[in-house]
Amino acid sequence: MGPGPSDVSQRVLDALARPTIGHLDPEFVRMMDEMKGLLQYAFQTENELTIPVSAPGSAGMETCFVNLVEPGDTVIVCINGVFGGRMKENVERLGGTAVVVEDAWGTVVDPDKVEAALKAHPEAKILAFVHAETSTGAQSDAETLCRLAREHDCLTIVDTVTSLGGTPLKVDEWGIDAVYSGTQKCLSAPPGLSPVSFSPRAVAAIKARKAPVTSWFLDLNLVMGYWGAGAKRAYHHTAPVNNLYGLHEALVILAEEGLENAWARHRQHHLALRAGLEALGMEFVVAEADRLPQLNAVTIPEGIDDQTVRSRLLKDFNLEIGAGLGALAGKVWRIGLMGHACHRGNVEFCLDALNTVLADLGAGVDKGAAVAAAQACYDAAPEAASA
Amino acid sequence: MGPGPSDVSQRVLDALARPTIGHLDPEFVRMMDEMKGLLQYAFQTENELTIPVSAPGSAGMETCFVNLVEPGDTVIVCINGVFGGRMKENVERLGGTAVVVEDAWGTVVDPDKVEAALKAHPEAKILAFVHAETSTGAQSDAETLCRLAREHDCLTIVDTVTSLGGTPLKVDEWGIDAVYSGTQKCLSAPPGLSPVSFSPRAVAAIKARKAPVTSWFLDLNLVMGYWGAGAKRAYHHTAPVNNLYGLHEALVILAEEGLENAWARHRQHHLALRAGLEALGMEFVVAEADRLPQLNAVTIPEGIDDQTVRSRLLKDFNLEIGAGLGALAGKVWRIGLMGHACHRGNVEFCLDALNTVLADLGAGVDKGAAVAAAQACYDAAPEAASA
Repeated sequence: MGPGPSDVSQRVLDALARPTIGHLDPEFVRMMDEMKGLLQYAFQTENELTIPVSAPGSAGMETCFVNLVEPGDTVIVCINGVFGGRMKENVERLGGTAVVVEDAWGTVVDPDKVEAALKAHPEAKILAFVHAETSTGAQSDAETLCRLAREHDCLTIVDTVTSLGGTPLKVDEWGIDAVYSGTQKCLSAPPGLSPVSFSPRAVAAIKARKAPVTSWFLDLNLVMGYWGAGAKRAYHHTAPVNNLYGLHEALVILAEEGLENAWARHRQHHLALRAGLEALGMEFVVAEADRLPQLNAVTIPEGIDDQTVRSRLLKDFNLEIGAGLGALAGKVWRIGLMGHACHRGNVEFCLDALNTVLADLGAGVDKGAAVAAAQACYDAAPEAASA
Repeated sequence: MGPGPSDVSQRVLDALARPTIGHLDPEFVRMMDEMKGLLQYAFQTENELTIPVSAPGSAGMETCFVNLVEPGDTVIVCINGVFGGRMKENVERLGGTAVVVEDAWGTVVDPDKVEAALKAHPEAKILAFVHAETSTGAQSDAETLCRLAREHDCLTIVDTVTSLGGTPLKVDEWGIDAVYSGTQKCLSAPPGLSPVSFSPRAVAAIKARKAPVTSWFLDLNLVMGYWGAGAKRAYHHTAPVNNLYGLHEALVILAEEGLENAWARHRQHHLALRAGLEALGMEFVVAEADRLPQLNAVTIPEGIDDQTVRSRLLKDFNLEIGAGLGALAGKVWRIGLMGHACHRGNVEFCLDALNTVLADLGAGVDKGAAVAAAQACYDAAPEAASA
């Protein structure tokens, strides 16, 4: 129950262990075609260029930047946590100029600041921001930010590593141009792949590049020779066959549940977890309206040592919760409720474990208080409890 | 039995399906440490920087080039098949100048030409070549080429995607500076990871860079914060946990067998396969002394259609063999004998299937001729037959 990888279901683990077949085998190609449709559903897009990059989310980020940014391009980069900072790194390593719009960690990207930056930098080609900041649990208003970008004729690159499958994300309706995600968060497939999707506008920008893409491995012009629809599958690199079996199964599970149901499930269990954490006196880093249900960053109680608690949870309860990153290291915990791991059993187990450890360490909390608060929350919304 | 992915053993498939745990979990970190030792053994190196890159072999290639090549650098690139051509692409996309030493497909890299290029280009920083050309089955003399490079104060980048675990490779003894491989060939783990190793000379060159590495994902300065020995494991990207379980198990299997035994096994089954293929009238693309045992490229008999045969093998025998790439497309088949798939049963099964299909198509071959020739070969070397 950290910030990912989330627990993987037995169905997905079983899929991983299917015999490895060739990446050009007709049966495998059929699965690739299905996967595209399933990813389009998860992203809520009809983008033809919707595929899993053969490497983890960081490579998905790099796929977006290395294909869209050319030397000399201006990119407005919003930073309100760790991952916006990585976007800036990507832009600068590619010879672009990053114009930074900064917001405090734990807050969302401020659309007014973004609009001001767009006005001040008419030369900007791209607006890049993180939809769901995994370092803080803040969820920015992607729809508004993308609208602003379009009004200023900017493409958008959006990090949805932690949002995909856990909270509403509508790539086409919101007009996102390039989006990347991960498999190890709310999809609950093992880490190692990064779903991406590119709008026709983004594809046109890639085709209009003057400078070659510096990465051969991530060059979408080449990758599409393998993943492109209808085209003869041209060998580019050897696809991570078994990992793709796992992702395929995870996407089938998501489709079976239905996106809206998955979003509702994450929201309801978050509310129960929140009730329990607040009963233990913890405070959320993020304001209520901006919280991600699947990533709960809460302050560590006064006088309690971060590492001591996390080690005891792991040792005594076989439970992982996440540490703070960057400026929040040692000050917050990040509790994930992602995908397959987002259910009532986990909420109550985590609250009970935390409650026990904190009580043992003399944090002045009542035994059983956290679970009782969560149960009251479930009693008030019985539908969610059975989900 | 194509050019990879090779068949994966049930032990490795079972390992893949172990529960996903966190990439910073103490148990996982312990496995990472073990993996480094196992990779050092497979590569025959004591290089501290010996790790699996979290993406397929093409990304391992890119890791070598993106970290070692700076804009303006001259790199001597040997091309004797598909993969040397990719090296050139890498150099040029990174702003380097590629000096190409070309040899015909199916032949090895000519050390005399390399020496001439090294003399003609004293400014060259790197010599890059493919040890085992998967597109043709030619094995170049890596030891001699690396010695020449050292004599001219050049670093070496060596592609060992298909050689690692199947044919002698001695990174330290031969003085290789940067080497990359794949998991899906003679290690018989699923595709998706790329073992790499860097000599202290290469590490010094990376540290002395003036230009930042253009790839954030593949920047070894950052990757080493996670994989580096002794250091506190700093989060860089989320490691592909389950794929690493699989690679770890595959490396344990290799260590159990012993490298020398694995090399001998590949050689002996290659000889039996060769006897059978020659009994069918096929000719090897590569001269005898230069052949890779694990990748057998043979000419398609006159009047026989490539696709017809491969489709029938797949449909009637559930057997994949590889097509020719580039200039060899439609002219050769590439039959893999890699790792877990390299055993007598497969040799005889493949020969029987090919023999049957060719006889049906009127290729003028005697039924049973191929398997009989292989059996005679095994009878002459009974030790190998039981391996």
